[in-house]
Amino acid sequence: MQALPGFRDFLPSDCAARNYIFAKWREVARRYGFVEWEGPVLEPTELYKKKSGDEIVGQLFNFTDKGQREVALRPELTPSLARVVAAHEREFKKPLKWFSIGQFFRYEKQQRGRLREHFQLNCDIVGETALAADIELVSLCIDIVRAFGFTERDFVVRISDREFWTDFLRSQEIASERWDEILQTIDKLGREPREKTSEKLGQLAEPVLRILSKGGKSEKLDRLVDGLRACGLANFVDVDVRIVRGLAYYTGIVFEVFDRAGKFRAIAGGGRYDNLIEQLSDGSASQPALGFAMGDVVLGELIGETATAGEAMEKATAVEQKINIYIVIAKEERRADALGQIQQLRDRGYRVDYPLTPGKVARQFQTAEDLGASIALLYGDEWPQVKVKTLATREETLVANEELLAHLQAHLSL
Amino acid sequence: MQALPGFRDFLPSDCAARNYIFAKWREVARRYGFVEWEGPVLEPTELYKKKSGDEIVGQLFNFTDKGQREVALRPELTPSLARVVAAHEREFKKPLKWFSIGQFFRYEKQQRGRLREHFQLNCDIVGETALAADIELVSLCIDIVRAFGFTERDFVVRISDREFWTDFLRSQEIASERWDEILQTIDKLGREPREKTSEKLGQLAEPVLRILSKGGKSEKLDRLVDGLRACGLANFVDVDVRIVRGLAYYTGIVFEVFDRAGKFRAIAGGGRYDNLIEQLSDGSASQPALGFAMGDVVLGELIGETATAGEAMEKATAVEQKINIYIVIAKEERRADALGQIQQLRDRGYRVDYPLTPGKVARQFQTAEDLGASIALLYGDEWPQVKVKTLATREETLVANEELLAHLQAHLSL
Repeated sequence: MQALPGFRDFLPSDCAARNYIFAKWREVARRYGFVEWEGPVLEPTELYKKKSGDEIVGQLFNFTDKGQREVALRPELTPSLARVVAAHEREFKKPLKWFSIGQFFRYEKQQRGRLREHFQLNCDIVGETALAADIELVSLCIDIVRAFGFTERDFVVRISDREFWTDFLRSQEIASERWDEILQTIDKLGREPREKTSEKLGQLAEPVLRILSKGGKSEKLDRLVDGLRACGLANFVDVDVRIVRGLAYYTGIVFEVFDRAGKFRAIAGGGRYDNLIEQLSDGSASQPALGFAMGDVVLGELIGETATAGEAMEKATAVEQKINIYIVIAKEERRADALGQIQQLRDRGYRVDYPLTPGKVARQFQTAEDLGASIALLYGDEWPQVKVKTLATREETLVANEELLAHLQAHLSL
Repeated sequence: MQALPGFRDFLPSDCAARNYIFAKWREVARRYGFVEWEGPVLEPTELYKKKSGDEIVGQLFNFTDKGQREVALRPELTPSLARVVAAHEREFKKPLKWFSIGQFFRYEKQQRGRLREHFQLNCDIVGETALAADIELVSLCIDIVRAFGFTERDFVVRISDREFWTDFLRSQEIASERWDEILQTIDKLGREPREKTSEKLGQLAEPVLRILSKGGKSEKLDRLVDGLRACGLANFVDVDVRIVRGLAYYTGIVFEVFDRAGKFRAIAGGGRYDNLIEQLSDGSASQPALGFAMGDVVLGELIGETATAGEAMEKATAVEQKINIYIVIAKEERRADALGQIQQLRDRGYRVDYPLTPGKVARQFQTAEDLGASIALLYGDEWPQVKVKTLATREETLVANEELLAHLQAHLSL
């Protein structure tokens, strides 16, 4: 029996790597004053149809439950956020700065960097139209990636503005019904042959390509970059109006994070979605909002392929999996005494392990090394003294059992 | 639109309480040398049928996926553990001491303390037959509950032994095919009228009731309690052979944790299941094992109703949701300077927030208080000095902006 295709088992080393990513996400989001929340992993399918239309259902893990409800394993968090914000709109002072770490699902063919489940960090600011919120959100996104040891040589945030294009389309007197289709075509530039793009854009091909060859810019994008410059983060961003993001609900600044070498899919992406909460709540709440999501799979691959980031993770996860103290029971008569001491040590916060069955002393010391202990305590002939061995230096000293706690607290900091 | 029945939204205060529970679970499990792992939330339905028979399907969130696979949202972790242990049997030194924190699902009518989803800690020891492993597991379970501030006056671990009863049934020459049914009847004692129990037990009623009136005991249970006594934990346990646990796969020591007042469902439960891994892996792996699970719902209710535990949680979760420093921007010309400083402070690990739009200074100070900041920094007329205000004491001091980091690092510990 195996796990289902596209689903992962997290063995201890995988789980430690996952926890390392979660801890960094959480730590940096909190530094930015974001507070954590979480929605259900199962939601009414309707919630996703409402946002993305019926065609989304093809990519969902959805089913009919035993109460005849149409339900889906969540593919993303934003619809749940809109639901929760609408339900509790008056309870919280705006702007909300909320983050969430959870698992998401899609029924798709597996590809590199895309499984059927993944974990995702979502960070959203709700209730603020000012560009300062966009600056805050992009800064957070940059600092989260930086926290893993990446520098501006490793990654870049490509920033664009949907309004740059909607202003252009308005100036060209293009009917708004056609905007989505044109934005999708611009989004696909570089992934489609130039001729195909030109054909799709028709009379717009020439002005669009002229903009792209010059590099588009706008006063709003300049102000955004100025804000990031004030934070010392301007080197991490490129204005790139080719970024449109496929999803129709974005209304303003949008951004995507890529590795500089261009080897991976996007590490994160997001933007402003000022109309979505109103639309999803059937008008019961109306709040401007913006947010981004970052998955664990591409990020994990990039960490694995980058020396500094990979070493930082390995070091942190190795420490997480280590114990502090191993108890060697050289004489079974001492087991009860050892158990009493183990309880005391664990109560003080030390990570302590010991053999559950009698075994050779040399083998017990080997286990102490295998488990990454700093210190081994030997309960044997020296009783009521205990032999304290520092495993790195092989230094040994005898300490009375009743003075052991004080001795260790003085010599072994956690 | 609402969440599905039996599913929870975790608003920030709920999420902080959940994280508090997870952190205690994780911390104590690690003190015991347990390492964390995790399985998928979706598994083949077959995995659960194999362990619990076809009748389990009635309680599952199960469905047919788009690839025509019969799948289920996991109701418990043990089958996934058996699958993973069987697949990686030779990679890890035994005994394994593994824990996991994750979400589980069941399609049931909601009741107090029972939703359709809950989070659960699972702790298992794999590969050890010695009673020392049972002692270690029960100790861990006790210490986890203790970590929330509960004492022996608040909870008790009721311990029993399946072998106590199977030895008895063997001595009465009862055919082993009838054992499960008789154990189920004993499990229901106290929840069913005495006459009904007697009728079901037939000729066994008299000896069974005699055992129960005397209080059953055995040499193995005595040794278990002796081990817990060596750890100083004997006051937390009662030997109570009425505990059988409904699940047929237990083979030895079983235990359940209850609040002393008897107001709640079991807080945790577990035991030894020496044959299950072999059975679930179709004989490809054979490992003795034991484990327990503790859910977040009953535990959370008990914390909420117990003064000391509730206060400890409130204190910890309040701190988690607080920022350290709020930046008051009294003059918009200073926003860029403030942004530069905010970035420096966040880089040092401080939790920092600031107004995204211009606002009255008094209102900004109010926000600083609302967000739980210790210190407010005012960027205004004093520039290039910054006013540093300690919010608890209302003390104010002027510090040059470029000396601010050093000043705060000396005065505001994290």
